[in-house]
Amino acid sequence: MSNAYGVAPSTRARVLRIAEELDYVVSPEASRLARGAVGRVALVVPHVDRWFFGAVVSGLEAELSDAGMDVLLYHVGDADDRRDFFHRLPARRKVDAVVVVAFAVAETEQRRLERMGVLIVAAGGQNAVYPSVHIDDREAGRQALDHLLFLGHRRIAMISAVDPDEDAAARSTGRDDAYHDALRDAGLSVDDSLVRTIDWSGVAAADAMATLLSLHRPPTAVYCHCDELALGAIRTIRRAGLRVPEDLSVIGIDDHPLAELTDLTTIAQPAREQGVRTAHLLLALLRQQPVERHVVVPTRLVIRRSTAPPRSG
Amino acid sequence: MSNAYGVAPSTRARVLRIAEELDYVVSPEASRLARGAVGRVALVVPHVDRWFFGAVVSGLEAELSDAGMDVLLYHVGDADDRRDFFHRLPARRKVDAVVVVAFAVAETEQRRLERMGVLIVAAGGQNAVYPSVHIDDREAGRQALDHLLFLGHRRIAMISAVDPDEDAAARSTGRDDAYHDALRDAGLSVDDSLVRTIDWSGVAAADAMATLLSLHRPPTAVYCHCDELALGAIRTIRRAGLRVPEDLSVIGIDDHPLAELTDLTTIAQPAREQGVRTAHLLLALLRQQPVERHVVVPTRLVIRRSTAPPRSG
Repeated sequence: MSNAYGVAPSTRARVLRIAEELDYVVSPEASRLARGAVGRVALVVPHVDRWFFGAVVSGLEAELSDAGMDVLLYHVGDADDRRDFFHRLPARRKVDAVVVVAFAVAETEQRRLERMGVLIVAAGGQNAVYPSVHIDDREAGRQALDHLLFLGHRRIAMISAVDPDEDAAARSTGRDDAYHDALRDAGLSVDDSLVRTIDWSGVAAADAMATLLSLHRPPTAVYCHCDELALGAIRTIRRAGLRVPEDLSVIGIDDHPLAELTDLTTIAQPAREQGVRTAHLLLALLRQQPVERHVVVPTRLVIRRSTAPPRSG
Repeated sequence: MSNAYGVAPSTRARVLRIAEELDYVVSPEASRLARGAVGRVALVVPHVDRWFFGAVVSGLEAELSDAGMDVLLYHVGDADDRRDFFHRLPARRKVDAVVVVAFAVAETEQRRLERMGVLIVAAGGQNAVYPSVHIDDREAGRQALDHLLFLGHRRIAMISAVDPDEDAAARSTGRDDAYHDALRDAGLSVDDSLVRTIDWSGVAAADAMATLLSLHRPPTAVYCHCDELALGAIRTIRRAGLRVPEDLSVIGIDDHPLAELTDLTTIAQPAREQGVRTAHLLLALLRQQPVERHVVVPTRLVIRRSTAPPRSG
């Protein structure tokens, strides 16, 4: 009824007559369905209740909504949810595009998404196979470590985070790589006892920090994969009766809004902007406009009061 | 084509025949549209990137998605967005229900929603006109103040937050009322210089705390409307060279995940649970099951390391 090509005039005339009898009203939605473009985008988000994901979603929603698209939210908290999402979605084509927000899509999930024939873009995570907007994790980590090295630290620990529900082969190792690169370039060897690998949890970071403080030679500085981990580490340091940054320096990555309130030195990444720019990328691709398929947004050091030169100099 | 009542068999037969010619496939979505129940719920959220809102949304999404509903996200950041949302949505009925997440709906907006004829419920805010799930703001505030009073504080400041985009007449004043009630019940008079009213912003709270510290007689304890404000106040106290809780006590409301990492004493509210229970309420109402239309979830004091008896005793 949308006056589409490929339907014989006589057939159309008959359908229109019958439709009138049934008092059929063409709704914009039903017309779009018939054309195959539904005007909807699915955001697939592993942690809606964490600042970074919320900020990316808020940027995406603002731009997509301005463009007249509806935004469907799919919270895929753990591996089961993700399997369920990738299993259900292809069964009913109800979106024009899927935005994967900051998690690595496993290979089997990739194939499933591709079978749907919808546009897929990635926001805030390095999913090299899809058009994406993200930071350079290796560069962000390097900025943090170069700051600690410049201050004179030589015994630097790393609290490294992995998502247990994420496909190991697909995850970005940039923040880990930065640690090894920076130490090597500074002529320092990696002491494995200074590297603690945990889940993305501040409480786990607090425990990891306790382990670091139980070493015969504790670190003078701690590089954390995100601000939440840094705050966990700082809690342990303070509970031990030590001061930040006088006794130990701590640096994070993110510039979480609470980093400003807790005087945390960090590497800032523009979270909302990654959402906004992913929406622009998605809209341009839907309109088949030429675009840069991989956009890297810059990060920068924000010096506050959690880093200083080491005490012993 | 969904075999509905009210269509003459002969008419139906003709439509089916034509549809076959056109290779029409009944999609679950198109059938639902015809019935008027679209299987979609709109979440209207003022701040997706703040923990409380994200946690409520995550609880809502989990339950609605399990029930086979699609979740549409509408981020209405400021008064303009809200006007725009309430203006656009009624033009096209594309949801079965609207969940208002933690903001007060103005009277004109209420009328607009009602004209849509969709179910409206409120999550995490006291919108007395709609079925809702929320905490008792007055009780939460009272728990915070009774804790400070029990510790022996008599000179207690309040950092009170208002949303500048929220309808003043509709907003909950429970956290303010608690302050006046508690002081009155303790036989104390309110010193207006100890009350600072600001936006919901930690940085604004840091500034408000500086004003409190510039008083001839500063407070010995500060009651903050939320944890983010409490962290802003603590930053100022620490920058002034004072200690929390030895020199000043600070208490918040929320139990934000970072409150645990920053050792903040607070009144905990179950944010995700408010989302989950709102979803249950909504689904029961859609199924026309009998329900309690106003659910109050309890709050509780979590004692950490930001409150202690006043120094001078």
